[in-house]
Amino acid sequence: MCGIFCYLNYLTPKTKKYILETLLNGLKRLEYRGYDSAGLAVDLCSGDVKQTVIVRERGKVAALEDLVRLNKELNMNEMCTNHCGIAHTRWATHGEPAPRNSHPHRSDANNTFVVIHNGIVTNYMDIKKFLMSKGYSDFESETDTEVVAKLALYIYNEQPSITFQKLVETLIEMVDGAFAFLFKSSKFPDEVIATRRGSPLLVAIKSRMEMMTEYFPILYSSDINAQSRKVAQSGDMPSGVALNGHVPPPSAVPSTTASVEAGEFKLGGMEPVEYFFASDASAVIEHTNKVIYLEDGDIAHVDNAGGLRIVRTKKKHANEKEFRYITELQLSLEQIMKGEYGTYMEKEIFEQPESVVNTMRGRINFETGQVKLGGLVEYLDDIKRSRRLIMIACGTSYHSALATRQILEELSQLPVMVELASDFLDRNTPIFRDDVCFFISQSGETADSLMALRYCKKRGALCVGVTNTVGSSISRETSCGIHINAGPEIGVASTKAYTSQIISLIMFALLISADRISMHERRKEIIRELKTLPGKIQKVLDLRESLQELAMKYYKEKSILVMGRGYNYATCLEGALKIKEITYMHSEGIMSGELKHGPLALVEPTMPIIMVAVKDSVYVKCQNALEQVTSRGGWPIVICDEDDTVLESIVEKNRKSKQEGAPITVKVPKTVDCLAGILTVIPFQLLSLYIAVANERNVDCPRNLAKSVTVE
Amino acid sequence: MCGIFCYLNYLTPKTKKYILETLLNGLKRLEYRGYDSAGLAVDLCSGDVKQTVIVRERGKVAALEDLVRLNKELNMNEMCTNHCGIAHTRWATHGEPAPRNSHPHRSDANNTFVVIHNGIVTNYMDIKKFLMSKGYSDFESETDTEVVAKLALYIYNEQPSITFQKLVETLIEMVDGAFAFLFKSSKFPDEVIATRRGSPLLVAIKSRMEMMTEYFPILYSSDINAQSRKVAQSGDMPSGVALNGHVPPPSAVPSTTASVEAGEFKLGGMEPVEYFFASDASAVIEHTNKVIYLEDGDIAHVDNAGGLRIVRTKKKHANEKEFRYITELQLSLEQIMKGEYGTYMEKEIFEQPESVVNTMRGRINFETGQVKLGGLVEYLDDIKRSRRLIMIACGTSYHSALATRQILEELSQLPVMVELASDFLDRNTPIFRDDVCFFISQSGETADSLMALRYCKKRGALCVGVTNTVGSSISRETSCGIHINAGPEIGVASTKAYTSQIISLIMFALLISADRISMHERRKEIIRELKTLPGKIQKVLDLRESLQELAMKYYKEKSILVMGRGYNYATCLEGALKIKEITYMHSEGIMSGELKHGPLALVEPTMPIIMVAVKDSVYVKCQNALEQVTSRGGWPIVICDEDDTVLESIVEKNRKSKQEGAPITVKVPKTVDCLAGILTVIPFQLLSLYIAVANERNVDCPRNLAKSVTVE
Repeated sequence: MCGIFCYLNYLTPKTKKYILETLLNGLKRLEYRGYDSAGLAVDLCSGDVKQTVIVRERGKVAALEDLVRLNKELNMNEMCTNHCGIAHTRWATHGEPAPRNSHPHRSDANNTFVVIHNGIVTNYMDIKKFLMSKGYSDFESETDTEVVAKLALYIYNEQPSITFQKLVETLIEMVDGAFAFLFKSSKFPDEVIATRRGSPLLVAIKSRMEMMTEYFPILYSSDINAQSRKVAQSGDMPSGVALNGHVPPPSAVPSTTASVEAGEFKLGGMEPVEYFFASDASAVIEHTNKVIYLEDGDIAHVDNAGGLRIVRTKKKHANEKEFRYITELQLSLEQIMKGEYGTYMEKEIFEQPESVVNTMRGRINFETGQVKLGGLVEYLDDIKRSRRLIMIACGTSYHSALATRQILEELSQLPVMVELASDFLDRNTPIFRDDVCFFISQSGETADSLMALRYCKKRGALCVGVTNTVGSSISRETSCGIHINAGPEIGVASTKAYTSQIISLIMFALLISADRISMHERRKEIIRELKTLPGKIQKVLDLRESLQELAMKYYKEKSILVMGRGYNYATCLEGALKIKEITYMHSEGIMSGELKHGPLALVEPTMPIIMVAVKDSVYVKCQNALEQVTSRGGWPIVICDEDDTVLESIVEKNRKSKQEGAPITVKVPKTVDCLAGILTVIPFQLLSLYIAVANERNVDCPRNLAKSVTVE
Repeated sequence: MCGIFCYLNYLTPKTKKYILETLLNGLKRLEYRGYDSAGLAVDLCSGDVKQTVIVRERGKVAALEDLVRLNKELNMNEMCTNHCGIAHTRWATHGEPAPRNSHPHRSDANNTFVVIHNGIVTNYMDIKKFLMSKGYSDFESETDTEVVAKLALYIYNEQPSITFQKLVETLIEMVDGAFAFLFKSSKFPDEVIATRRGSPLLVAIKSRMEMMTEYFPILYSSDINAQSRKVAQSGDMPSGVALNGHVPPPSAVPSTTASVEAGEFKLGGMEPVEYFFASDASAVIEHTNKVIYLEDGDIAHVDNAGGLRIVRTKKKHANEKEFRYITELQLSLEQIMKGEYGTYMEKEIFEQPESVVNTMRGRINFETGQVKLGGLVEYLDDIKRSRRLIMIACGTSYHSALATRQILEELSQLPVMVELASDFLDRNTPIFRDDVCFFISQSGETADSLMALRYCKKRGALCVGVTNTVGSSISRETSCGIHINAGPEIGVASTKAYTSQIISLIMFALLISADRISMHERRKEIIRELKTLPGKIQKVLDLRESLQELAMKYYKEKSILVMGRGYNYATCLEGALKIKEITYMHSEGIMSGELKHGPLALVEPTMPIIMVAVKDSVYVKCQNALEQVTSRGGWPIVICDEDDTVLESIVEKNRKSKQEGAPITVKVPKTVDCLAGILTVIPFQLLSLYIAVANERNVDCPRNLAKSVTVE
């Protein structure tokens, strides 16, 4: 939640117009992370002392853009040789969406310290009390962030000779919670300090130096050099090495690579350079592809000589060596643009025939039936010897775990548990050394999943990441993992990541059962169906017109029930979540086996119901559920196999007022049981999209939500 | 689902009026099992051949009663020396509620064979086709049951010399699915045949003989006698013995006890006697307290000499000895009456201070901290050595498992899994010999839980029952168990059983951790709080007036969201289920840790929201969730500790239009974390009750639902 962006130019003269456009453009790329309000802070470059101007507005970045244009203080033609601007797009947690609660927040009326923040400061009440007792009482907002700006000023006033870096070090010691902060101060003009604990943050570098070599030299304060390594952005995550910042680079890296005793390293200085700080790479890719992902506890400081220095107050472990690699991004700008589609979500839904191929590419040999997951090779034996598999996730990723639990149980013959990360943490769930824990997260930054990962790691469990974002916290902190490779997902409601997560987990199930003769036929069937899956997905997408019609039937409803069981239970939960997220209709996924234990009371002729039933091992039970619903006057839409006629006749038989031509079924191609969920979820993706469009909702930015949930 | 009742008097002259009243009264006791329609069949006793009359009506038993009164064919004063009447109350599964779909169903216009049925015949379509091909085409209903009556006539017509018993034996071989059947025929006057597979059925006996001895002699066809044993109805289930019909009685039983080679035994004959067949004991307790619980595959036949014979076509195992004990019920009639309350549900809610005491009685020594569960003694060591605990249940019982999962994990230090029985079966979940599986069911007859039990038993897991019904299928087929002893629960929406289930599972957690010094303090705290729990429950019940007010605020709403996490997540699910069940409002329980992953999109000022947050380890996180909801304009009611002021101030702060005096919180007494769910769920029980009353819903018989779900 919340997007952070900073643009700093050093010895590279730019107009104020350019600077503002860069900041606003960066925010637009990050808008999916929150769009309750936006704000920025820039300096007036003429005059002896750089005066900081803050502009903030409720709503989306476009509203801020209008307000910036109208601002009288800002001279668009003013040239700035050195300048640091920060910008923020907000997803409200404390305090309603309003200009006064927008970032940047400031220490005082002079804007001496300004700060932007992604996360939650949990002890802000205590800090506020403390500051008020010291006479700092001019609070303007209800946020948890404003106290941080005021705290910075307090620390400065107490020790006016303190360095900017030391000031922030002192400050974050006093703050509890999760954060990525950017600090800017008129006391330290053209400098910026960035630090994180729990929220993602990266710094991107654009300089002439970067063109010189793939292994960009990193200068440490102690003059010990380390070398960056190029991390492959496509295909598998390299296991162990690049994803775990702590592991020393392999011998291929030049021998100048060395450890940093002080835990501090430094880049550049006195050279023309531009820096970008951002919550994720999509905001910087149009400027440079060289980025350093910061880690928890890092304090990154760009000083007034244009040098970047990354400091840590504490070493993680006594003998650990610290590196920060410069990663070369291979995202392309097109990949994050909408193309011909009206919304990112629509684009991502229709990309699925392609994205599932990308997930499988180079991993399944459809001729020999061999499955290879590069990111797991070294750990496969450990996984096979484990006592149980635990999949931990939130939201849609949790549903992908539910969708694959049964096939994992069947093929691994191990107990498989599925946990909501928040509940898993709340319960202090017992975890043992012979457990294997999977952490599934599109962004790889989901706060609860990341904390669950650290919890399990501490208890000695083997941790496996399943993410869509190379370089994300989860991919770095796990021992090994699967990169789902679905391409960037911008729409807040996850679609293609869900189907790729399912395929990744099924490939894992195929991999660990490869050695079992008894499962040979079953595996062959699944692999055969995986091959034809993209074509079948396309067939479901071709139903868009009839789903548009269905959306027109439902779009004014307040409630909707989605029922199914077996492999399709996950589809029901995920389908209901999609409808909730972007249409704001109260939809609920219901295990149809539980109908008689309560939910059946809701069934009546006016209650919209969608049931999912394909010809798998629970088909007869689904038929019974349909009988029960229709005999109560319910009149459901049924998502079923293309050759199914029985379910239609059950609905028809019980239908009271026969509406001519009204649809009863949505028919999807037949496939093997464990893949059916991929085909049955797409009608829900499309249906929710069309219902949202019919209601003129903002599909990509549903109210109250944000893409990547980086706070608890 | 569906209630079955039969009254047979042999050599005991009764008026038709008495017989009809007995049948209707029996149905009323069973009405909670289904009330879509009701019906009965009795004979005209004058005339050479007894003509069978069927009366059926849509709706509740009272409607049938009216129709019986108006029936011209029936002579109320007619005296019947021998007579067999059957009656049924229906919960619709196949075919809408209507007289033609009501039971009894008949073979033909002459009512030659009539049948009542509880369950589902899954192959009824095939049987129907077969019968139609043989010329039996006068089907009157859309039910799965009617084919059974016609099939009986077909078998009879093919072999007119067949015995009634042999006919039914032949018939049930042809039927797939779950059932309890009662057959009556004008070809076999004054006889009845009862058989079951998967649905509960008992026979109760009233005769002079029963007064003679506590160990009532059972006569076998082969003249080998066995003796009944008295089963204690209160307190613990005796482990192993009385609950597992197959285990030979202990040596205390007279030595006339012996095995039955033929798997057949017989009672009475040529003596005055009355028999009652019923789906459960509440229907017979006012007549007699001597009952035999039938088991799957049993065929019970009362012949025309008044003899009861129980036959099995197949022995379960080659060397197994078969017994059917006569159980002496200790239910009292008062226990199943409403008393001063308007509805059973209300009575059961307000009984909770007492029912929780009954659950703990004789099991916890509050002085020494000792916990004793008689039903588990022999198996405790096995449980401690197990690899994991798995709790399997449906509906409310499933929520009791969720509510206790964390404390079980904490105190047992074992992995604890919680499974919906239907999903568990759908997935063919791997189960191992060192697993311990708990089956939680108020009735002990829940079909999915019972099938899951058989599935786990076959795989060698130790199976433990947690039920409220001694003699139920689950209590008989498990190796050991805990009787929750909450007293009969008649209201379809479970209330006191839920709280007693939680206490039973917590007592189990206390029991297996008794030996651990590290848990001494924690156990002491829980036991101390258990002692004060009844008083605290009373305090929550005393909030009834403010909950009535709250109900008036909400009763016209269509949707409601219930949010919480940690121990109170189960409260949210159970609270939402209660509201669903009896108010027909679309309510959903939401894990507040998942809010940001979708549900938050639903939050707006007009959306009714209830949040649960007590001062436990997730309190700060709950505060954050409340901040998020209120900063989106949500205006929730908060269920919290009595000394809490923080949550109130958060809601107050963000409230836009301050309604004077509008309630913000429902405050419950403070207790230890793992027991808080008992106190926080009661406001939901009351709220749903009052909302349902305000909407003039039938609280005890919510539409479409039934008490005990004995079909899949």
